[in-house]
Amino acid sequence: MASLGHVTPQTLEFADPLPLKSGASIGRYQLVYETYGTLNAAKSNAVLVCHALNASHHVAGSYAGQPKSEGWWDNLVGPGKPLDTDRFFVIGVNNLGSCFGSTGPMQVNPDTGQPWGADFPVVTVEDWVDAQARLLDRLGITRLAAVLGGSLGGMQALSWTLRYPQRVGHCIAVATAPNLSAQNIAFNEVARRAIITDPDFHGGHFYAHGVLPRRGLRVARMIGHITYLSDDSMEEKFGRSLRNGSVDGAPPELGYSTQEIEFQIESYLRYQGDKFSEYFDANTYLLITRALDYFDPAREHGGDLSRAFAAARAQRFLVISFTTDWRFPPARSREIVKALVDNRIDVSYAEIEAPHGHDAFLLEDPRYHGVLRAYFDRIAAELSI
Amino acid sequence: MASLGHVTPQTLEFADPLPLKSGASIGRYQLVYETYGTLNAAKSNAVLVCHALNASHHVAGSYAGQPKSEGWWDNLVGPGKPLDTDRFFVIGVNNLGSCFGSTGPMQVNPDTGQPWGADFPVVTVEDWVDAQARLLDRLGITRLAAVLGGSLGGMQALSWTLRYPQRVGHCIAVATAPNLSAQNIAFNEVARRAIITDPDFHGGHFYAHGVLPRRGLRVARMIGHITYLSDDSMEEKFGRSLRNGSVDGAPPELGYSTQEIEFQIESYLRYQGDKFSEYFDANTYLLITRALDYFDPAREHGGDLSRAFAAARAQRFLVISFTTDWRFPPARSREIVKALVDNRIDVSYAEIEAPHGHDAFLLEDPRYHGVLRAYFDRIAAELSI
Repeated sequence: MASLGHVTPQTLEFADPLPLKSGASIGRYQLVYETYGTLNAAKSNAVLVCHALNASHHVAGSYAGQPKSEGWWDNLVGPGKPLDTDRFFVIGVNNLGSCFGSTGPMQVNPDTGQPWGADFPVVTVEDWVDAQARLLDRLGITRLAAVLGGSLGGMQALSWTLRYPQRVGHCIAVATAPNLSAQNIAFNEVARRAIITDPDFHGGHFYAHGVLPRRGLRVARMIGHITYLSDDSMEEKFGRSLRNGSVDGAPPELGYSTQEIEFQIESYLRYQGDKFSEYFDANTYLLITRALDYFDPAREHGGDLSRAFAAARAQRFLVISFTTDWRFPPARSREIVKALVDNRIDVSYAEIEAPHGHDAFLLEDPRYHGVLRAYFDRIAAELSI
Repeated sequence: MASLGHVTPQTLEFADPLPLKSGASIGRYQLVYETYGTLNAAKSNAVLVCHALNASHHVAGSYAGQPKSEGWWDNLVGPGKPLDTDRFFVIGVNNLGSCFGSTGPMQVNPDTGQPWGADFPVVTVEDWVDAQARLLDRLGITRLAAVLGGSLGGMQALSWTLRYPQRVGHCIAVATAPNLSAQNIAFNEVARRAIITDPDFHGGHFYAHGVLPRRGLRVARMIGHITYLSDDSMEEKFGRSLRNGSVDGAPPELGYSTQEIEFQIESYLRYQGDKFSEYFDANTYLLITRALDYFDPAREHGGDLSRAFAAARAQRFLVISFTTDWRFPPARSREIVKALVDNRIDVSYAEIEAPHGHDAFLLEDPRYHGVLRAYFDRIAAELSI
């Protein structure tokens, strides 16, 4: 399998305001996106890849002059890879409210001349899907061969089939859920409180103060990381290993400190938190976790997910979950499968035995990638591409 | 079952320095404790109850003039209750480093005339047990009928059988583990980082600045609370309910806010965090989570828990776990049971099917309390009390 090589992000400006689910709207805005492969003459081979919390439009390939800049799903997307860019035209788009180029809280609000900050409107999964649909309009793509996403990206993929059923052939929803559980919301809320109560947050208008709420972002990311890994994989990787290794074969000494690092797992988490706080925007973190909280397609149907998916009768689905994912466990994917089956919708479901918890959806597990490869082969065969 | 009625804490001063596992020592110190029931003439009916993170010596009964001041295990301890104070002499003792009366970081360090703060020495489960043993010496109790504890209290109960095997008849270890997993340490570390990076923490010497690191304590408590409840019980209790109820039967409106409370679970967690930050000491939180991290009796035996428990051959054990406890799941209790069985030690093990997660050890579940009642009946019969 070859790599995609160097890729280049592109930007499109949108002049028409985007109405949002909250009732507000975003006036002029831009979306940053990348494409890989070639759109065929029939424009039938487009696959949209939706991103999760921490990712962006940069799905695959790398940037010229930037070593280690591979996209976040580079192991999946490329020539000869399961989502084969020799056959499919793959689109990655950065969502509104993000901090990676599309219009978001770090950018200047044209009404005030100041960064949006906390005034950036609350965006939902449905709003992102609407913005993605407009991007496809501009690219001249009427219908997607497939929409694909993991975690929060999977929610967008599901939402596509409900909002634009005539525009999607297949939906591939990985490691996701039909809504967040109370425990999921609880973890999001603790992360948000860590950010909001950081004195450098300034109600979300920290840009004007020349500071960043890094303490809060660090804690938020540490909490997130715990929920991305399985208990077992954390045990396997770190266990109770101390940061200080043994000296001359003797067991390592304990440091007896409450504030210094003693265990490897502490060192790992602090590193993840530090790194994240250097590049991620605090307001974006709030917006994206809120989009997760709000996603709940059954809500407008009295909590009945089967009724919600009645709108998706023309689609075909692949749903994938991972046995050790305790953030979005297999039982949550099975709820989606049940709602689809209730509607006699064509759905394939794979429950992958993988040790890596929620993070498994980003990793290169042969059974997982085998399922995706077979499914994309099927789509390609249908489309004769 | 009658209540214990009003109880009164007592204080003992200790003049001899207590050597600590870290190599440091604590000079003069005091321990606050409570007792319920009557020590018999043979002094054979004493039961020590060890407390967990957030609790104290105030195990049962209530304080005169203070409504709702029942002790934290009042449902278990009292006349006619499973741990029957008509038969047993029950002792609750506040551990060193706590913020509820025994010597701890809020108190004045006689060497400096200032509160100990972050200079309070790191205390371990073993150090607490040593201090508890000295308290028993002063009370004239040579041997305990039983030592009992849940969670971190269960670790102290286990440690008693290893450090003072000749002084304990029975060990009852509930909802505990032979050491923390990487995930357990990870949650503790995030909580500690939230506290330590609160600008009001001042390296642990916040008392001198007239401030309290409440933001950090709130976040720490919120994280803790998530791990005390099971996913299912949180779902049952809160689900996705909104804080704003429905108006005139219409479904409640969403508020579309990233900073305001939207879901009931958020309201609950914020309340728990606020309440905790009003009374708990930040340095104590660091010390107690570190004591959890460090507990690992197998460590000095090359990681072999069976070899560690060889020291406890004269004891008998009751080990109890709860099916939905994901903080200290049944598998961790089974490790303890295995190590005991390997040593041909008499152990009873009960895995209670309870929905409440780790918190179940504090609740009044009939099967759980039935097991404890039967076990204490057995002890009483052996002692003819």
